[in-house]
Amino acid sequence: MLSPSGVVTLLTDFGTQDGFVGIMKGVMLAINPSLHMVDLSHEVPPQDILRGALILQSAVSFFPPGTIHVAVVDPGVGSQRRAILVETQNAFFAGPDNGLLSLAAPVETVRRIVNLTNTQYFLSPLSHTFHGRDLFSPVAAHLSLGVSSETFGSVVTTMERLFLPQVERTETQLTGRVLTIDHFGNLVTNITEADLLPFSREKLWVSIGPVRIHGLVFTYASVQVGATAALINSWGMLEVAVRNGSAAQRFGAQLGTPVYVSKE
Amino acid sequence: MLSPSGVVTLLTDFGTQDGFVGIMKGVMLAINPSLHMVDLSHEVPPQDILRGALILQSAVSFFPPGTIHVAVVDPGVGSQRRAILVETQNAFFAGPDNGLLSLAAPVETVRRIVNLTNTQYFLSPLSHTFHGRDLFSPVAAHLSLGVSSETFGSVVTTMERLFLPQVERTETQLTGRVLTIDHFGNLVTNITEADLLPFSREKLWVSIGPVRIHGLVFTYASVQVGATAALINSWGMLEVAVRNGSAAQRFGAQLGTPVYVSKE
Amino acid sequence: MLSPSGVVTLLTDFGTQDGFVGIMKGVMLAINPSLHMVDLSHEVPPQDILRGALILQSAVSFFPPGTIHVAVVDPGVGSQRRAILVETQNAFFAGPDNGLLSLAAPVETVRRIVNLTNTQYFLSPLSHTFHGRDLFSPVAAHLSLGVSSETFGSVVTTMERLFLPQVERTETQLTGRVLTIDHFGNLVTNITEADLLPFSREKLWVSIGPVRIHGLVFTYASVQVGATAALINSWGMLEVAVRNGSAAQRFGAQLGTPVYVSKE
Repeated sequence: MLSPSGVVTLLTDFGTQDGFVGIMKGVMLAINPSLHMVDLSHEVPPQDILRGALILQSAVSFFPPGTIHVAVVDPGVGSQRRAILVETQNAFFAGPDNGLLSLAAPVETVRRIVNLTNTQYFLSPLSHTFHGRDLFSPVAAHLSLGVSSETFGSVVTTMERLFLPQVERTETQLTGRVLTIDHFGNLVTNITEADLLPFSREKLWVSIGPVRIHGLVFTYASVQVGATAALINSWGMLEVAVRNGSAAQRFGAQLGTPVYVSKE
Repeated sequence: MLSPSGVVTLLTDFGTQDGFVGIMKGVMLAINPSLHMVDLSHEVPPQDILRGALILQSAVSFFPPGTIHVAVVDPGVGSQRRAILVETQNAFFAGPDNGLLSLAAPVETVRRIVNLTNTQYFLSPLSHTFHGRDLFSPVAAHLSLGVSSETFGSVVTTMERLFLPQVERTETQLTGRVLTIDHFGNLVTNITEADLLPFSREKLWVSIGPVRIHGLVFTYASVQVGATAALINSWGMLEVAVRNGSAAQRFGAQLGTPVYVSKE
Repeated sequence: MLSPSGVVTLLTDFGTQDGFVGIMKGVMLAINPSLHMVDLSHEVPPQDILRGALILQSAVSFFPPGTIHVAVVDPGVGSQRRAILVETQNAFFAGPDNGLLSLAAPVETVRRIVNLTNTQYFLSPLSHTFHGRDLFSPVAAHLSLGVSSETFGSVVTTMERLFLPQVERTETQLTGRVLTIDHFGNLVTNITEADLLPFSREKLWVSIGPVRIHGLVFTYASVQVGATAALINSWGMLEVAVRNGSAAQRFGAQLGTPVYVSKE
């Protein structure tokens, strides 16, 4: 059995101006004063479940085994959507059952899914609009103290899952999409290093809009300042960047913009 | 007597770009390396004492007893405004005596107010412009180590207080105001759940600008995406929201915009 | 020999939306679960090494001796630029060798510079684009556990250094520059309190663009709301401010804008 590590991460779309995230930490520290709490992001665009799921997925493998990830991007708060606790081989996840946790907890890693219904571990009264404070935070804190996951509700067998757009393949071309745009304006696609195996790093072409980039480089600094680079990023995904600039701005690219890889 | 819990919260209008908040934490950790520090908000609009006071008020009840709240929205820094430490039944507050602490520390809860004049606990030299670093942080850290509050200066009997706009009542109508606008653009009013007791949840009308909303719902997801909802939020206040959208933008509402509740 | 204090600060240009900083903390907590981590700033403008160096310089003296400062503004990541660990009288610094660490670690304080080449302490595989995660974080965490600095690579004798614009002097006038603009829009110059010793506080004139300010005040509140103030800020630098407003906006000032001090 996996034991909680004492580390809790928080991922929300709450922003940082209103004190909502600080309040969640207060609730947790009141239950377990020795928790280590780490902010993943609170700038998930409001209600953007996919964006939150991608950030969570990118982060989990870098945390100690037994880390509890509390994620709240929750447009359905207070409705019939379930609140769940997911236990995988390496981590715990608490959040709404709307797909947010699904990329970080792929089917083959899931050990147990609990429908959080035991109100004894919630703040009382439970609000209809702030389960981050009243439900997920106290459950995570009690979990960190060693309360076993099945105590928080009934074990269920499925959870909502998100599916990413698939890369389309022909003999000579891949068609991918911009999956996310980072703080620097780098365009992260859904094309993986493995997808690129049939292509030559030096000879392939990456196309986005009217622009064609020849070959992959290893790092931003391999091209001139202001020039365009295609590279495999630190998560193993094809990324289009502008050195010391914003590729998103340069190309007017958005989430979903197609990116093509071809042999010539 | 209340003992400090080892948890310190920070609320400022300093933003997070310049390192000011990190420096305050450095000062505190140099005095008490085992503190738990939680950010409430550093995005209080510059010099907006009321906004800071409201955030602090919304948060304090969720922290462990004995939490020390350091709040610095301080347009009068270096002037004759007093620096104070307030001890209530449940918490400690350190900040400028300009009303910032007053909503979180209502009169009936206050046990002691100390005018912070004992320079022995300040950084030296004391700057004229950054008491967050030089005065409030070291006082809070020494307090957390068990230095009793009256050691930091002389006990005084009053502090500056803010007064919120009152809800106006007639037999059939309430007139409230938008008190704050959160990260999602939800409009939080000064009308409380108690104010609404004479009204029927299902039959009342909430009016803002030209828009009338019929009845209260329990949660955002009770209405269609893009539709308007009136509800009691997680602090027991009447709130006007747009599902998965921004009510502030939709209504062009600002702080102080009137909101009416009527029986029909 | 200086011992690590268990406090780590983080300074980056990563922003806070993508989870990059949280991931660095996860890497460190997986190695040393008892670290205290403090964010200095993650809003350094992308690739702005000077701005990062100034923030770091302003902060280091307020942290406990032995604090480990991890700073990553790293446009040359993955290129031939060195990754270094710098040990001074009071602190440790890990970051790229591009000048970022140089203002906080002046020559006379440096005890040792290590070229970080021992891959045994890096995450594996080492990415080409995210050394904050794969190199600087694990090195800092191992350092905090007592691994001595020369274990991480070979000792070198020099590091890249930034040089600030110098103040120009005549008998009757100083010419300085806006060095940084803070969150409030205050203009921080490169003119120090010492530079001003030949001038009378009450009689000097500070000029920026077409505006002349007579004398220095001690604090923002010494002038009327909306009025201009010149003062020595909490780091001992000449600063131009607008009370409860933004001097940057008022004067259309930018980094490098000249500021003059004259006797009359």
